[in-house]
Amino acid sequence: MDKIYDLIIIGSGPAGLAAALYAGRAELDTIIIEKAPISGGQIINTYEVDNYPGIPGISGFELSTRFREHCDKMDMKFITGEVTKFAVEDEIKIITLDDGTIYRSKTAIIASGANPRKLKVEGEERLSGMGVSYCATCDGAFFRNKVTAVVGGGDVAVEDAIFLARLCKKVYVIHRRDEFRAAKSYVNKLMSLENVEIIWDSVVEEIHGKEQVEQINIKNIKTEETKSLDLDGIFIAVGYLPTSQVYKEVVATDANGYIIASENCETNIPGVFAAGDVRTKELRQIITAASDGANAITAVERYLNTI
Amino acid sequence: MDKIYDLIIIGSGPAGLAAALYAGRAELDTIIIEKAPISGGQIINTYEVDNYPGIPGISGFELSTRFREHCDKMDMKFITGEVTKFAVEDEIKIITLDDGTIYRSKTAIIASGANPRKLKVEGEERLSGMGVSYCATCDGAFFRNKVTAVVGGGDVAVEDAIFLARLCKKVYVIHRRDEFRAAKSYVNKLMSLENVEIIWDSVVEEIHGKEQVEQINIKNIKTEETKSLDLDGIFIAVGYLPTSQVYKEVVATDANGYIIASENCETNIPGVFAAGDVRTKELRQIITAASDGANAITAVERYLNTI
Repeated sequence: MDKIYDLIIIGSGPAGLAAALYAGRAELDTIIIEKAPISGGQIINTYEVDNYPGIPGISGFELSTRFREHCDKMDMKFITGEVTKFAVEDEIKIITLDDGTIYRSKTAIIASGANPRKLKVEGEERLSGMGVSYCATCDGAFFRNKVTAVVGGGDVAVEDAIFLARLCKKVYVIHRRDEFRAAKSYVNKLMSLENVEIIWDSVVEEIHGKEQVEQINIKNIKTEETKSLDLDGIFIAVGYLPTSQVYKEVVATDANGYIIASENCETNIPGVFAAGDVRTKELRQIITAASDGANAITAVERYLNTI
Repeated sequence: MDKIYDLIIIGSGPAGLAAALYAGRAELDTIIIEKAPISGGQIINTYEVDNYPGIPGISGFELSTRFREHCDKMDMKFITGEVTKFAVEDEIKIITLDDGTIYRSKTAIIASGANPRKLKVEGEERLSGMGVSYCATCDGAFFRNKVTAVVGGGDVAVEDAIFLARLCKKVYVIHRRDEFRAAKSYVNKLMSLENVEIIWDSVVEEIHGKEQVEQINIKNIKTEETKSLDLDGIFIAVGYLPTSQVYKEVVATDANGYIIASENCETNIPGVFAAGDVRTKELRQIITAASDGANAITAVERYLNTI
């Protein structure tokens, strides 16, 4: 009979690493599976993180290294591989990796994260972290008194624009339609702000800048008219793609693909938990992901105490 | 007319300081009220914190200093004083301090914390942090292969004992009654553990030790028999007292006095939020408190966007 672990953690971003830390402290027999060669998830590529309480102004890479080193003090077992299949049979969680290896466990924490949707335009990837951002809450403070644009028309885009308008000299909102999908009260608020300019029916075609964002080209999709805007930052708020494809036949997900789980990280399947950006939640931040990791271990222990 | 702030944060433990950090980054016009002369809340007196992800092995005092310094980079306004009255009139939150000063605000985050109930026995206070602990999840890992005792009979006490049994050579459970209040499944689990000894009908009378806990005296309250136990740590799990007295006439609290609020920190009163140990939640840890602070600011911003 193959070994059955107490816990398998899938993903080693802030949620997975915090879960690993708490699992280590609880001496749960645990493995952590990470597809990338290093731990950290999304934050590896974050130029500067300044909102993880207690650690001001640190590169995402350095912060993820500190998280990982904290875990390594516990001698946690990390495995590199991509999960290609996830199943639950007789309450045992069965995880298959891309190389065919199969791991079995009493519990699983899915901390596989999410990635922002990209515009897929010239300059976006090259200037990511250099003025191109996917998170106003994370990076807004770097643009005090500067000119920025928000791309999108949903709740997040409108909230981001209101948030940025408090900090920035000027905020453009670029939306491909002629009305917002966001809640009316937010839209009214946004419309009332003097330093906000809304550009309807338009899409970004190109992002320019040598080492930092300097200018974007936009096109009105009705008139085909193009123009360029000088700015310092562009916040892309056109949605997130949770990494839930492999799991969604087993656990319940919402319309956007997020795994449905509340603060205690419990999914609809006993013994399967979702932590961090992949689960349904209001605010996707390093601190909230790390908190999920701790909460998920409490739920795991509670489950293990009942079987 | 008196000034009306965007936000008043009450308390500057991890929840309040994380909220302050996020409020500063969002440029909300904010003050933070703290009754103690320094920030940090409960953690100030914690000898060593080893479970805040990314910062291994740090004194509670030093960690709270780092949290505070992180806020001070934002030039946040801290006020020393104890809140003696909390009211909401025409959606304005009115906060009165012990010196009679009154502050008004559109929103308030109550992050006033909670304190563990004490046994009130000789040696408890003196050896607090030196073997006397009120949090197994926090401090359990310092007692690997040692002998410990858990005092209490509720869910938390039983869960703590199961947790400690994985780490410790031996765990005594000292309970003043002859049965546990905890869920049956946990109790069965506890009873099945070979290194756990349950001592019924007994109370702790004294905690001994020079610089670290060495021994406790216990008394059987039915037979009046006394004995002493040699051990390295004692975990007191007889409940928490949330600091909610001043607020409970305004916001809804549960039977134990915790302010009823979910992950987004919203209470039953619009514009009043509860973050950290004072709110209803599963796991009271620094990381979960700090996460609350961030989530509360998201909720504050959302509320401000609607008024």
